[in-house]
Amino acid sequence: MSEAAFRQVTIVGLGLLGGSIGRAVQAHLPGVTVVGFDADAAVRAKARELGLAHTVAEKAAEAAQGSDLVILCVPVGAMGDAARALAPGLSQDAVISDVGSSKGSVARALAEALPGHHVIPAHPVAGTERSGPEAGFSSLFHNRWCIVTPPADADAAQVARLVAFWEALGARVETMEPDHHDLVLAVTSHLPHLIAYTIVGTASDLEEVTQSEVIKYSAGGFRDFTRIAASDPTMWRDVFLSNRDAVLEMLQRFTEDLTELQKAIRKGDGDTLFDHFARTRAIRRGIIEMGQDDARPDFGRSDHGGSK
Amino acid sequence: MSEAAFRQVTIVGLGLLGGSIGRAVQAHLPGVTVVGFDADAAVRAKARELGLAHTVAEKAAEAAQGSDLVILCVPVGAMGDAARALAPGLSQDAVISDVGSSKGSVARALAEALPGHHVIPAHPVAGTERSGPEAGFSSLFHNRWCIVTPPADADAAQVARLVAFWEALGARVETMEPDHHDLVLAVTSHLPHLIAYTIVGTASDLEEVTQSEVIKYSAGGFRDFTRIAASDPTMWRDVFLSNRDAVLEMLQRFTEDLTELQKAIRKGDGDTLFDHFARTRAIRRGIIEMGQDDARPDFGRSDHGGSK
Repeated sequence: MSEAAFRQVTIVGLGLLGGSIGRAVQAHLPGVTVVGFDADAAVRAKARELGLAHTVAEKAAEAAQGSDLVILCVPVGAMGDAARALAPGLSQDAVISDVGSSKGSVARALAEALPGHHVIPAHPVAGTERSGPEAGFSSLFHNRWCIVTPPADADAAQVARLVAFWEALGARVETMEPDHHDLVLAVTSHLPHLIAYTIVGTASDLEEVTQSEVIKYSAGGFRDFTRIAASDPTMWRDVFLSNRDAVLEMLQRFTEDLTELQKAIRKGDGDTLFDHFARTRAIRRGIIEMGQDDARPDFGRSDHGGSK
Repeated sequence: MSEAAFRQVTIVGLGLLGGSIGRAVQAHLPGVTVVGFDADAAVRAKARELGLAHTVAEKAAEAAQGSDLVILCVPVGAMGDAARALAPGLSQDAVISDVGSSKGSVARALAEALPGHHVIPAHPVAGTERSGPEAGFSSLFHNRWCIVTPPADADAAQVARLVAFWEALGARVETMEPDHHDLVLAVTSHLPHLIAYTIVGTASDLEEVTQSEVIKYSAGGFRDFTRIAASDPTMWRDVFLSNRDAVLEMLQRFTEDLTELQKAIRKGDGDTLFDHFARTRAIRRGIIEMGQDDARPDFGRSDHGGSK
C-alpha cells in the first residue's frame, strides 16, 4: 500500500479520538505529517504542548491545506459546520472521513457540506470514559474494530487507502452500509450508554438511599455503570439525536424484555429468571475469545490491591 | 480484640465468597483454624486440593463442631436448609453469620432455622463475575465494605467480634437495619444486575444484528454489561426472589427515568439529554475518591495492549 498511502493527515477536533489518532499516526506512520485543528483555543494550546500533531493550525481551512486525508473528530451534530469551515482549504482529491458514532446522518451532513469530494465516513469502535486533549493514547485502536461506511459511488482505491490507514494504526476494519452500522451500534453502544446514564441518574435522585451510600456500596455492580455514564455529554446528546430511530427501536425491545423479567420477579417465577440468567454467559466468552475484553475477572481491576 | 477473637471458623459453601474467606483467614489470621464444607463432593475435593481450608469436612454438622464462628456462603434461597443441616454440630455460643446479598429474608430464615443461637447476618459487598472454588482470592475484601445487620436483640460483644473479624480480612464495616440494606443494595447491585442480564439477553435475540456483530463491536459499551451478566445464575435468581419488593420499587423508578429520556430522544430535545448526561459524572468521581473503583480510564483494562 505504500505508494497509495496518505502523506499528510489533518485532524479536526483534538479530544480523546482526535488526540489518539494524532499520537497513533506519529507512533505507527513515521513518514506522515499530522496537522491538527480545534475550534477551542485552549485545546489548540494544550495539543501543541502535548505534541498531538506536528503542527496545530489556527484556522480550519488552513489546517486542510495540502492534506490528502482529513478526519473530523467532532461531535456528530457539529460535523456539517466543521466540514464547511474546512472547504476553502481542501484539495479536490483529499479523502474526507470522520470518527462519529452514528453514520447515516453524518454521511448526509458531509455529502451536503462537501459536494464533489471523496467523503468516506468511518467509526473506530474504541474509546474510554475520558475526554479532552489529554485523554488520548496511541494504542487506543489496537485490536479494536473500525467500521468504514463508503457511499455506493465511492472510489474503491480511496476506500482501500482509508482501510490501510486504520489497519496501520492497529485496527481491524469492516465495511458496512451506514444504516446497518447504526442498527448494530444502537445495541452495542448507544443503548448501553442510555441505560447507564439512566440508572446513575435514578440512583442520584433517591431520597431513602443517600448519595454517600450509593458510592460506598457501588462495588456490588453499580460502579461499572458509572464509568460509561461519565462519558462526554455533548458527544452523547448528539449520538441520540442523530441515531434516533434505531435507538428507539432497540429501547423498545429492551423494555419488553425487562417487563418480562419484572413479571417473573413479581410472580416469584424462579425458573424463568434462572433460564434467562443462564444463557447470557456465552456472549461474554465470545467477546473474550475475540480479544474484545480483558479475560481477567473484574476487568483485571487493580483496586483489590491484590493477587491470589 | 485479640482475647475475643474467633479461634475456629467454619465456612459452608466453598464458591467464590466462601473460598475467598478461607484464603483470606489463612492469609490474615494465621492463628485461626478454618474448617470448610460444601454440599457438592466435587467442590469439596477441589477445595482440599486448593487448600481453601485447613480441613474440609464430609458433613455439615461435623464441620460446625468446635467452631465459634460459622459463615454460610450459599445462595440466599438455600440458607435455611444449610443452617438446619449444621444445627446438630453447633455449639450454643457460636456466632452464625452469612454473606448473602439480601438480608431481610436471610435474617428470618436463619432465626427460624436456629432459634436461640447468635445469628448475626452480614454482607461483604465484594465479588467478581466468576464462581466456584477456583474463583476466590485472599484480597477480595480489601477496602470493600461489609454490611453487618444484627437483630435488635443481638449480643453487642458478639457483634463486635464479627466486625473485628471482617476488619481483619481488610474490609471496612458498617452496621445497618436489614430492610435498609435491602433498599440500598437493590439500587447499587440488584437493579444493575437485572438490567445487565436484560440487555445481554435483548442483544442475543436480535435478528437484524448477528451475535457475531454484537461480539465484534462490543467495545462501544456493551462488553461492560456482559461481565455482570456472566455472574452465577442460581445466586441471582435467589437474590431477586428474596428482595422482590425493593427491587420492584427501584425498577419502577428506573423505568420512569428511562421513559423520560426516551421521550426526549423522540422529541429531539437535546437540552434535556445534555442536562441529564452532564450530572452523572460526579458520582463516578465520588466512587474513585472513596477507593471503590480503579481510577485509570477503562478500569485500567489491559486489552489495548498499551501504555500512552
